[in-house]
Amino acid sequence: MRVLVIGGVAAGMSAASKLKRLKPKTEVVVFESGVDVSYGACGMPYYLKGEIDRESKLVARTAEKFRKRGVDVRLEHEAIDLDSEARKVEIRDRRNGTTEWWTYDKLLVASGASPIRLDVAGRGDERVLALGDLADMRRMEPWVERASKAVVVGGGYIGVEIAEALRGRGLEVVMLEKQASVLPAFDAEIASTVEAHLIHQGVDVRTGEGLKSYGNDPFIVHSDLGNGYEADFAVEALGVRPNTAFLEGTGIDRLSNGAIRIDASMRTSLEDVYAAGDCASVRHRLTGEDVHLPLGTHANKTGRLAGRILAGEDVTFDGVIGSSVLKAFDLEVARTGLSESAARDAGFDAGSVSIEAPSHAGYYPGAKKVRLKMVYDKQDCRILGVDMVGAAGVAHRINIAATFITAGMDAETVAKLDLAYAPPFSPVWDPLQTAANQIRCP
Amino acid sequence: MRVLVIGGVAAGMSAASKLKRLKPKTEVVVFESGVDVSYGACGMPYYLKGEIDRESKLVARTAEKFRKRGVDVRLEHEAIDLDSEARKVEIRDRRNGTTEWWTYDKLLVASGASPIRLDVAGRGDERVLALGDLADMRRMEPWVERASKAVVVGGGYIGVEIAEALRGRGLEVVMLEKQASVLPAFDAEIASTVEAHLIHQGVDVRTGEGLKSYGNDPFIVHSDLGNGYEADFAVEALGVRPNTAFLEGTGIDRLSNGAIRIDASMRTSLEDVYAAGDCASVRHRLTGEDVHLPLGTHANKTGRLAGRILAGEDVTFDGVIGSSVLKAFDLEVARTGLSESAARDAGFDAGSVSIEAPSHAGYYPGAKKVRLKMVYDKQDCRILGVDMVGAAGVAHRINIAATFITAGMDAETVAKLDLAYAPPFSPVWDPLQTAANQIRCP
Repeated sequence: MRVLVIGGVAAGMSAASKLKRLKPKTEVVVFESGVDVSYGACGMPYYLKGEIDRESKLVARTAEKFRKRGVDVRLEHEAIDLDSEARKVEIRDRRNGTTEWWTYDKLLVASGASPIRLDVAGRGDERVLALGDLADMRRMEPWVERASKAVVVGGGYIGVEIAEALRGRGLEVVMLEKQASVLPAFDAEIASTVEAHLIHQGVDVRTGEGLKSYGNDPFIVHSDLGNGYEADFAVEALGVRPNTAFLEGTGIDRLSNGAIRIDASMRTSLEDVYAAGDCASVRHRLTGEDVHLPLGTHANKTGRLAGRILAGEDVTFDGVIGSSVLKAFDLEVARTGLSESAARDAGFDAGSVSIEAPSHAGYYPGAKKVRLKMVYDKQDCRILGVDMVGAAGVAHRINIAATFITAGMDAETVAKLDLAYAPPFSPVWDPLQTAANQIRCP
Repeated sequence: MRVLVIGGVAAGMSAASKLKRLKPKTEVVVFESGVDVSYGACGMPYYLKGEIDRESKLVARTAEKFRKRGVDVRLEHEAIDLDSEARKVEIRDRRNGTTEWWTYDKLLVASGASPIRLDVAGRGDERVLALGDLADMRRMEPWVERASKAVVVGGGYIGVEIAEALRGRGLEVVMLEKQASVLPAFDAEIASTVEAHLIHQGVDVRTGEGLKSYGNDPFIVHSDLGNGYEADFAVEALGVRPNTAFLEGTGIDRLSNGAIRIDASMRTSLEDVYAAGDCASVRHRLTGEDVHLPLGTHANKTGRLAGRILAGEDVTFDGVIGSSVLKAFDLEVARTGLSESAARDAGFDAGSVSIEAPSHAGYYPGAKKVRLKMVYDKQDCRILGVDMVGAAGVAHRINIAATFITAGMDAETVAKLDLAYAPPFSPVWDPLQTAANQIRCP
């Protein structure tokens, strides 16, 4: 039995090591197109900020360690074609350009995703960067070190994290965000709180303003509003696109952005071909739709499950509900479930309540204001989503919501939850329960 | 319609104000035996520590404010007898000793609980204190101010909080705990972590050593091991006992410690007599037993629900699962659900896993070690309880567990929960999920 794994970061390596542990006799070969495996990509902005002193800290386990555990790891090897009927995949050795067809019994595609790059004039300039992998991070570090001014193109999660990193290194930062506000995935009120905080932290936030082109000598970022921002370099943070181009022509079922559609058993539409992580879809539990939510947490979970499934275990992935959390300078910003508009789009009769509450008992020192929007189904009062922002008490609290939304709890049930309370940690009614208490049920 | 409420702190005032808001025409009279209403008793140790500068900050709303909202609040009035057949309660005005029978349509007993005091020699000494209400706090403050050494009798929640407060004010502190470890409600491993921390913080912890008597000139706390601890004063922190002595002879159903047994609609065994808060039982959802867990969070929840029920709403209280959290100097200590021994006592085929994990991604600065014990049912892998301790990332994380335990989730479901992740806040696998991953299910 031979299992080939395309991609050696979170999903691929989780799957490979879990599989090898469960079925030591299975031959497991991992092809990783880059030179690094199993690293914490989510930590890269904090390395650039200077908060992580050694790059090696980001690497959970080296290729050598995986090899010692019997996983055959091939670095700088990328998949370029697949013949699923013949059960073989064509692999190119990037060091010398040679290619070779490898046969498999089962194939796991965990090829990840790469930053979306805009097709604009000047895009080839070396001063136009993105942050997709450790190689990108190494490329960016000297620019951060010597620069005094940068433009961040995109005000989503990664854009905000990079802006924080660059400000932390003392750079002037302009942020262009084409949408009306930063963090467009968030409720408008929550996003505007973050936007105000970015400005307070010295980020020159330009919303409703997209990238038009790059000019050189001097390097200038031209916006679609006709403004030009001179800078030492620019970082594009415009989301990611699945690395699935090598599957074109194979007939594999993909979402419109190229993400491989998988079922609850991580199977693709091709026999004996599985997929996991940032290259694959996940099922949204609340809408039933297959969506692309490339997050490290899903990559680790689906990778580990893929390993178990490839080892023959009868397990399934039940999907996601859109939970995420972000540090934006001194704020914690988090969401789970459906936003009000997403809930309506999905056919729910959605209502919402918004509250402000202290992060812990108001009389205990250090309480911070938490803003919270709770979305619910007016038909049965079930909670559908929560957006939250505050200087404290948000990042873990959102996961209480993620759990009760997964459990399908209604407002009354949430208000009665036996949540642990002490003044240094919560108000006597947790803000989530204060919000639930305000929902008027039929 | 006249509703009488005995007790004006968390449960009583929550009920009174909720009822008055829902049914403005109902006459609502609250009899409070002390001089304060609606205060945050859980904040008292932090006032004594000096972290809360004004006593008034602990008072959520004054009696005058309740009166303005139409609630008739009578301070220094205590219930001394009940004739439920005649629907009347005897009230004594503590200021002048006069008594009066008040008739009611419905009665809510929310008389709270008071510190258990030991019947030992020297107990009447003015230097033997306890912390049950604001009056006790006022009495204790000058002792804390001028003393240099104190003995805390009891190493439970309140004892630990008081020890922290006294150390914070620079006192030498001896803690006597009759049980083998502090925090006996917690798993032994977790409790021993706290005990080591108390010692590290300079508390002279004496476990397995109980109080025997108090001697005077000089004031000495004698232990049952024959030791004598000279001190300026002592604080007894030995738990609380429900204030239900006035119900003796009424036939009302009570637990062995005197807590009034109530059903899911907050009804006692006497017609039109309801109870809520620290004087009443709560149903443990996992064991089905009526237990006495006098916590502020239950008092607020059951009080508010009692107000709705007295207003005629058809709502019920579904019970508790034993969630609690404690700040012990620099540690967060929390638990929810059943301990392993409690689970076995309740008839579960209980197993457990214990892990240590970082509070957030190990490569991000400031990660603290979290110790976690997860108890589960070996029959169906359902999670039954979690104990946790650490310098960060515990107090809110326990409530994720409280929620999935309430929802009846098994280990596999917990491991797949879509919890929000970012390196500054969690490892990519939340410690709760790391523990769940270690549970081997049938």
